[in-house]
This record gives sequence, structure tokens and C-alpha cells, in this order.
Amino acid sequence: MYGHIRLGDILLFVPLRPPGDVPGEGTGGTSRVRLTRAAIAGLMWWLSPAVAETAATTTAPVPAAAIEELMLANRILDDRGVLDAYGHVSIRHPANPNRYLMARAIAPGLVTIEDIMEFDLDSNPIDRRGRSMFVERFIHGEVYKVRPDVNSVIHTHSMGVIPFSITQTPLRPVIHNASFLYVGVPVWEIRDAGGTTNMLVRDGKLGQSLAAALGNKPVALMRGHGNVVVGPNVRVATARAIFTDENARMQAVALSFGGPINYISPGEGALRDSDPGDPARAWDLWKANVMKKPH
Amino acid sequence: MYGHIRLGDILLFVPLRPPGDVPGEGTGGTSRVRLTRAAIAGLMWWLSPAVAETAATTTAPVPAAAIEELMLANRILDDRGVLDAYGHVSIRHPANPNRYLMARAIAPGLVTIEDIMEFDLDSNPIDRRGRSMFVERFIHGEVYKVRPDVNSVIHTHSMGVIPFSITQTPLRPVIHNASFLYVGVPVWEIRDAGGTTNMLVRDGKLGQSLAAALGNKPVALMRGHGNVVVGPNVRVATARAIFTDENARMQAVALSFGGPINYISPGEGALRDSDPGDPARAWDLWKANVMKKPH
Amino acid sequence: MYGHIRLGDILLFVPLRPPGDVPGEGTGGTSRVRLTRAAIAGLMWWLSPAVAETAATTTAPVPAAAIEELMLANRILDDRGVLDAYGHVSIRHPANPNRYLMARAIAPGLVTIEDIMEFDLDSNPIDRRGRSMFVERFIHGEVYKVRPDVNSVIHTHSMGVIPFSITQTPLRPVIHNASFLYVGVPVWEIRDAGGTTNMLVRDGKLGQSLAAALGNKPVALMRGHGNVVVGPNVRVATARAIFTDENARMQAVALSFGGPINYISPGEGALRDSDPGDPARAWDLWKANVMKKPH
Amino acid sequence: MYGHIRLGDILLFVPLRPPGDVPGEGTGGTSRVRLTRAAIAGLMWWLSPAVAETAATTTAPVPAAAIEELMLANRILDDRGVLDAYGHVSIRHPANPNRYLMARAIAPGLVTIEDIMEFDLDSNPIDRRGRSMFVERFIHGEVYKVRPDVNSVIHTHSMGVIPFSITQTPLRPVIHNASFLYVGVPVWEIRDAGGTTNMLVRDGKLGQSLAAALGNKPVALMRGHGNVVVGPNVRVATARAIFTDENARMQAVALSFGGPINYISPGEGALRDSDPGDPARAWDLWKANVMKKPH
Repeated sequence: MYGHIRLGDILLFVPLRPPGDVPGEGTGGTSRVRLTRAAIAGLMWWLSPAVAETAATTTAPVPAAAIEELMLANRILDDRGVLDAYGHVSIRHPANPNRYLMARAIAPGLVTIEDIMEFDLDSNPIDRRGRSMFVERFIHGEVYKVRPDVNSVIHTHSMGVIPFSITQTPLRPVIHNASFLYVGVPVWEIRDAGGTTNMLVRDGKLGQSLAAALGNKPVALMRGHGNVVVGPNVRVATARAIFTDENARMQAVALSFGGPINYISPGEGALRDSDPGDPARAWDLWKANVMKKPH
Repeated sequence: MYGHIRLGDILLFVPLRPPGDVPGEGTGGTSRVRLTRAAIAGLMWWLSPAVAETAATTTAPVPAAAIEELMLANRILDDRGVLDAYGHVSIRHPANPNRYLMARAIAPGLVTIEDIMEFDLDSNPIDRRGRSMFVERFIHGEVYKVRPDVNSVIHTHSMGVIPFSITQTPLRPVIHNASFLYVGVPVWEIRDAGGTTNMLVRDGKLGQSLAAALGNKPVALMRGHGNVVVGPNVRVATARAIFTDENARMQAVALSFGGPINYISPGEGALRDSDPGDPARAWDLWKANVMKKPH
Repeated sequence: MYGHIRLGDILLFVPLRPPGDVPGEGTGGTSRVRLTRAAIAGLMWWLSPAVAETAATTTAPVPAAAIEELMLANRILDDRGVLDAYGHVSIRHPANPNRYLMARAIAPGLVTIEDIMEFDLDSNPIDRRGRSMFVERFIHGEVYKVRPDVNSVIHTHSMGVIPFSITQTPLRPVIHNASFLYVGVPVWEIRDAGGTTNMLVRDGKLGQSLAAALGNKPVALMRGHGNVVVGPNVRVATARAIFTDENARMQAVALSFGGPINYISPGEGALRDSDPGDPARAWDLWKANVMKKPH
Repeated sequence: MYGHIRLGDILLFVPLRPPGDVPGEGTGGTSRVRLTRAAIAGLMWWLSPAVAETAATTTAPVPAAAIEELMLANRILDDRGVLDAYGHVSIRHPANPNRYLMARAIAPGLVTIEDIMEFDLDSNPIDRRGRSMFVERFIHGEVYKVRPDVNSVIHTHSMGVIPFSITQTPLRPVIHNASFLYVGVPVWEIRDAGGTTNMLVRDGKLGQSLAAALGNKPVALMRGHGNVVVGPNVRVATARAIFTDENARMQAVALSFGGPINYISPGEGALRDSDPGDPARAWDLWKANVMKKPH
């Protein structure tokens, strides 16, 4: 569980541990000191463009805004029907590139900031305290290992993309908002990595295979399952997950006409990638829609 | 109608009968004694893994949680568009395997705990008191007779599955969440059992034919009508009804591409069946969505 | 505008006219007497199974329940996406078979009981008072003229049926709830009746042509426009409009599979027509959904 | 930012500028005088059918009703799923044909009357004050230049139309509410105007090319992007954007049947155009639906 610390008008998010949970930190008083140190480290990170490398082996605090964005991404993707009860969203730890943050095993539409847990890149929980975890968290950890450019990973079962994961028909960009698909959308076949499985990315080996299939691309489809979508931050990853699903639905209709399709060209996609527009405009709308819903 | 009895922090649901409704139980005082005995029996059932066989010929109380889950399943399936005004959901009586519980004839979206009635497996009401009943309740009773593994039955008209009930195209699993379809989805043709009918499963004979077509499978389609979905409990049956409809819609799009489809294999389905994931995660989300709606 | 009169626990709906609007009824006092007479006539109608023939040339009061049902049908069909801003619903006057009741020109989703007007079967308003009227009201009047069995008429632009109105593919029943389509669904081509038009049924001649195409059937499609749906009462007509649209959408998917379709047979349709189930169950749900929406 | 001035029961909308923002207008007192003059000019415009030509080089006030309609068009098109986070709507300045009004860069679903900015026809802001602007505002300015009949321009990414923008299948009218499409729907290929681009209409040259492709028609598709829809006023343009998307979806289903399609004929479209029905009926419904939503 995370708690809040207010330093002036900066609200920091820090992991809370009961006394005894960590060797050598036995009392509430000690805990209070530890929290304060963590808060100061977090403040320093917040004020500095360079993330402190020395934080790699200890738990660093997370700015409240980052946790809130992660929570909102969960709610937004639920609200828009891109995540069902079983998808998940993560962000790389802002202060520690060898950690990522993701909810405990709970439907994205119900995620609160209290549900966020921290994992290392082998997808071990840092401070589990009995909470259940997503079986498929290895998708996230293994992608973060091989993609330093990626700071957010989303795993969806979005209905628009499934038909492209189970046919020979490649998903390709048909609308500019999904032009990032111009680099190609690999389809990962879990049978190639694990033979006959229960279809879940349940260990690091399967996660590594999926991450390899993804390569340096923004989206990979998972056969008969869904997709993995990545981005430099959670807003871009969220937008990509939404636009990938919309693109798939529009492409399916265009395919039904039976003729050739005029796809977004690689050149167009590359130019768009270099100037991707304003993700805040969509985020603000999607957030407002989520905030209007009863909780 | 069911009433509540509180025993410590256990809330029991017991059928209420007006004096004189049952031969030999003529006064309010007697009724009160009977209720107390039933409550005690219910408490014993609740505390014990073994269901008392001696309860088979009398009405046993039902834990409030079971009635509430049944009510929620109705509301959830309405909320998600899987049940229209004419579908229904039942559970096997938790304390009496020769009985089942289902709402009086009312749209699933309007079901309250007060609407739940009790039936024997020939689909006779135990305590009708003038309430109207689903004409097609025989679907439920006849399935419970031949499927001891089944504790919940759902009958839907869900729009996604109808096209597969009226064509030669078999419904097959395309996404892991519907991998339970790997055993095959029979299509029941009411003409084979009843010739020209009004399409309703209006008696035990038609119900038996449908149950035979279902066999040991989780889902059977009913030609030009809908489907019957079963499960070991109401949560699993609810999830199966929802994922069957979603699978059908995605398969229809994939079919429109015109090429071969890479279905979930029998081996994958079997592995998934042996470790079906966490149904609570979806249930919690679906329940929360229903509870947020105005009543 | 209609006003209320309460007689015991019966609430009657009566047309209100300002003094001077009708020749020979010049004062408020006279108007009050007239209202009282009308209320008594309405009460007699309400208590009697036989509708008074003598009411044919004067305005008879309408039971409040009938007006409310008509209002609800408008709201329900809007809520379910079957009526857009331009559709309309009417009922035959309960006390006068040569009159019908329908809203002034307003979107169905906004209709209140105060918007209901009365028309003769040539679609002249009985008491217009400057209100705008649906240009296409002739659809209603001309159908009532030739279909004494019909007491409700609905005109929709429902999106599911349009593709069947502009192709050679006949709309046929694929699900039991739409089995009433077994008699065939004519497609009315306005060009046959009016040559090049603005597509609107703007006069009695076009209305007669449409009514002739409808014949004795429950539904006729209007090419490039929508459909007309009729029933013995407004609840049945409402259900038919909804199920016709749903049937069309499911048939379109089934057609996309490319093989033969196993339609509801004429015998099945006829048996179902003779025992159409309980329309109240759906009505109660649809009404409840409408009543939950903010007004 | 706009402020209100009340003159009797007329509410005028006038741009507010901080002192010093305009050369030569240095004090709050001066500003008040300017506002009053502007209000009087606006009142004169409001009372007169002829728009004052002399207003072309100064900022004239805008009636509050016009600003409110523009805001509502944004909200309506968001509510109906025709505008996503990135579309935009403009109106020509009611008092100055060489100006147009459009929101700052914000999602249409979030637009308030305070977000409206004013632009000249080269799409330069009249009074920017640091606000971000739509990159693609040139669509609007260039269309207003060459289409004096047009007083509202809408740019959408509506999902129904995209398939027709990337295939050889022309979008044609299949339902009377979209009969205005009978004149043909050009598809603008940005490659013809700009070669390889990032797909955005980011300057006047691209805007001119799009406006030329639109010609004298109500709708042009933009390949892999969306469409531009115009009208004599914002209500008609809004209705056209909505019906164009609906028409596209119905045409796609009809095309899937594989046979010939009976389109709205040019003669029918022309007759309908000459008597387009009552746009207020739909507007009132759509507005009511928007007003019911939580803000």
C-alpha cells in the first residue's frame, strides 16, 4: 500500500510497510524516519531531470501524479471498452528503471491508487503482503528489460484486434491516429514459445518470447488472446491501445468491401511519429469522462 | 417470498408461507416454529461441506449470499446485454440438489431477491402462491436432472450467437476467455424434438431433448432462439454466457476476412479448463457496475 | 392540450379548448360543462368493453393510461435506438376508431403527455391550435383506415432494417421474438407511387400506397427510409419495432457467413403468433429503464 | 475570452481584452467604452438582416445564442460519437464574414463558451493571448474563403466514413436523411497536394487543396483521416455530420449482401435539398441529451 507525504505543495507517494516486514526495521519510529528519508529522495528526483542511479536497489518514492495517472489509465481503458476485467496497465518506476508499478490482481475499472504494487523486472513483488498478483505480469517485466525507451506497458483483450490475431490478415494503419502501426504489427504465437499452453504468459520465458516478438514496435498481437501495447509514457500507451482497437474495427469494415485498401504509408507514419500531436487533448477528455462516472 | 433470519452474523434466507398454505401447518405460531427449525438446518448446512441428504423432500433454507448472487447474475447479464427481457438464470438449491431457484416470470434486469421462487426438477413450483412462471423453466429442471456437475443454468437470446444457430458455421473458440467452447458447441434443432412448435421449450419432453443435445458440454445453441449455458456455479455460468457472446462476435468478424482461422486448440482449451483463472475479478467489476446504476 | 379529470380513482384525459375555439361554445362556464359531459362519456367507455359508436363524430376523452402508454412508447423506442429524432408513434383513439392520437412534431425522446394531439383518419388535426405536425402523419391515418385490427402504428428509421430496404435481400425472421415476420416483409418503393419525390409520405395518396403495400402484414420496409410497424396495441407494436431491428442485425451477420440460413418457418411463425408470450415482461423492463433516465 | 453584455433582454457576447493588449487602448476605462461601442454595434447587427460590411476589419460582438450553439454543436457531436477528442467545429462570424469562431485546442466534449476564439480567414488568431490552437484550423478558413454559402464547418474522424476514404467504394446516400450526399462525396488525397505528409492539414496550401476538392458539395472525405462537412448554419452542418456517419454504416452493411444497391437518386436528393425538413426537431433532442449529462 502507498501513503501520501506532503512537502510544501508536492504530494509524494511512498510505500508503507508494517514494522517487521523488512529485516532490521522493527519499530514504528524507525519506519517514520525511513519514510522521511524516502520522501526527501523523492523530492530530489521530482526536482531533477536526471533519475538517481543509486536508487536502483532500494524502493524509491513515486510522485503522486504518476500513481494517479496509472490509476486513470486503468479507468479510462475500462471506460472505453479497451480493457475488460482481465487486462492490465503498468508504468516503469519513475525513479528506478529496474522496477515497475502495476495494480494488484483486480479489474482495471476498479483500480484505486491504494491497489498499486511495485515489482522488479523479473516480476517479483517488492512488498507483496499477501496481495494477489496478475499471473501475466511477466509481459510487463520482460518488455521493460529489453525496451529502455518504454515506460508504460498495456495488455488488452480488445475485441477489435482479435480477428487480426487469428487470421492471415495483417493489422495495418488505416487512420492517421493509428499511424504508429506503420512499422508492422507482429502476431505472437504462444505455441511457438510454449507448445500447448493455457494461453497465459505465466512465466518469464513466455514473457521473453513475447517481448522478442514485439521487438522495437509499439504493438504486438497475441494469437487468440489480445495484444501488448507500449509507449514512452502511460498517456501515449493508453492512446495507442485505444486507437489500435479503433483502427482494427475500421480496417475490418474496409476489408469487407473486397477491394484494395489505401493504407497509411511508411513515410506518412514516420512523419507522424516524429510529430505525434497533443496527447493531452485526448487524455483530458477521457479523464473527464471517467471522473463523471459514479464511483 | 423469502424472508431473512439472522443467526449471529449469518443471514439466512427462508421461504415464508402464509398459515394454511401447507397441510397440517395451520397457525402463525406453528409457522414460527417451522421457520426456526429451517433456520437451524440452514445454519448446519452452511457450516458443513456435506449437504444433508435428508433435506431432499422438504424445503431447506437458502443462504442469503446465494440468493443475492442469483439476483446479481440476473442484473449483470442484463447490464451487459447478454440477457434481454426474456432470458432467465437459475441456481441449484444449495441445500437440496433436487430443487432449483429462479425468479418468477420477470425481466432479469428487474429481478429482486423477493422474486426468487423454488422449483423441483420437474419444474413444478414448491410454493407458487399465484405467481407467474417462465414457460421455459423446463430448460433448467431437465439440465439439473442429467448434469450433477451443474449448479447454474442460464438461457439467453444473446445476439452474437444467433447467426451460429441458423447457419452451418460452427461456433468455435477464438479467444482464451471462451476456450471452454473447445469441446464443441452443439446446435439444438427444436424441430427434431417437437416438429413444428412455437419455438419455446414449454414442457419436460422438449427440455429433455435440449439437455440431451447439451450433453456434457458448457454451451448449446438453440436454433433461431439463443443458447443454454451451464456451470458449476452461477459466477462461472455468468462469465461463460458473456464470453460466449463476445467470442461469437469476434469469430463473425474473423470469418468475414475469408481465410482460415486459427482457433483455440483442444489441448489449449483443456489446459485452460483445468486452471480457469479467477472468476471473482470479473464478477467484482460486473457487480460494481450494476450497483452503480440507478434502481 | 389535454387536461386531467379525476373521477374516484380513475384519471381521465380530456382535450382542453380555450373559449371561442369551437363555434357555439363561448364561455368558460360552458367549457366546464362540456368537460364534465366528456368525462362522464369517458368513464362509461372505460367501464364498458364495447366502444360507443356514437362517439365517432365528437371528441371523446381518452383514458390517462392510454396517453401515458403512448408517451412511454415514444420514450422507449428512443431509449433503445429504434426511433431517432424523426420517427413517430400513434395509437387509435380508444373511444373513437375514426381518430388517432399522436404527438405534435417533436422528437420521440422528448414527448410528454401534453404533446399528444388528435387526428381524423385523413390526418387532419381535430384541435390544432397552431401546433406543428408530422408531415408524414398520413402513414398513420391511411393504415388505420384499411386495418381495423390495428390500434397502433410506428414509423421508424431504424438502422438495422435500411440495408434490407435497398437491396434484393428479403428481411426474414431468424429469431423467435421476430417470428411475426414469417408472413413476409414487403418493401415499399415510393417511386412506384409518386415517381421522384422528396422521399416523404407527405399526403394521403402516398399513405394509401404504403398502406396497400403493407397489406395485412405487421411490417413493411420503406426503401431508403425505414419501416412502418403495426400492432393490435401500442405494446405489441413497440415490441415488434424493436425485434424487427434486432432480427435485421442478426440476419445481416448470418448472411455474411455465405451459406444457407435456417429461417423461422411459416408454421413456427403461425404457432408463435397464436400464442405470442407476455408483452408486459419486456414493457415493464423498457419502461423502468426509461423512468431511470434523467428528464 | 468572451464576456456577456445585457441590453434589455438581448445578451451579447463580446471579446474581453486586458488593458495594454491592443496598442492604443491602455486603460480599463477605455476598455469599458470600447465594449459598449461593440455592444451597440452587435445590437444593430442583431436587429438587421444585412451584416455591416464595415465590421470587416474590427472585432464585432457575437450574439450569445451563436456562441452557445457553437458550444452545443461541439458537445452534441461528442455525445453522438461523431467527434472524438481531435475533431473541431467552427461558425463564420455572424457579423463579419471574414472571420470565424472556433474553440481553442481542446476536445469538443469539453468545450465551454469561454473557449471560443476568433480567427481571420487565413486562420490567424485575432486575440490569441497564449492559447493553443488547432493545427488544422486551415480547413475552416480556406473553406470559408471559397464558399460564401457556408457558415459552419466541421472536421470529424467519424469511424463510419473512414472505410469509404481508403477504398474505391464511393460513399453514396442510402437513407433520405443523408440524401444531401447525392451530389457525390469526393475523397481528398493529401498525397496529391502535399506528397508524403504527417496527414494533417497544417497550412493554408493544404487547406486550399481540400477546399478545392470539396468544391460546392456538403461533404468531402479525407483519405485515412475523416471528413469535412459544411452547411449554411451550424445546426444543418451538425445534422449532416451525424447522418453522413450513419449512412456510411448502413451502406457498409448493404454492401456486404453482395448485390446491387438502390441508392437515393439525384432527383430525390435534389427535391429533398429544396425542402430539408425541420432541423430544430433533431437539434432539440440532441441538445436535451447533452444537457442531461453530468458536467
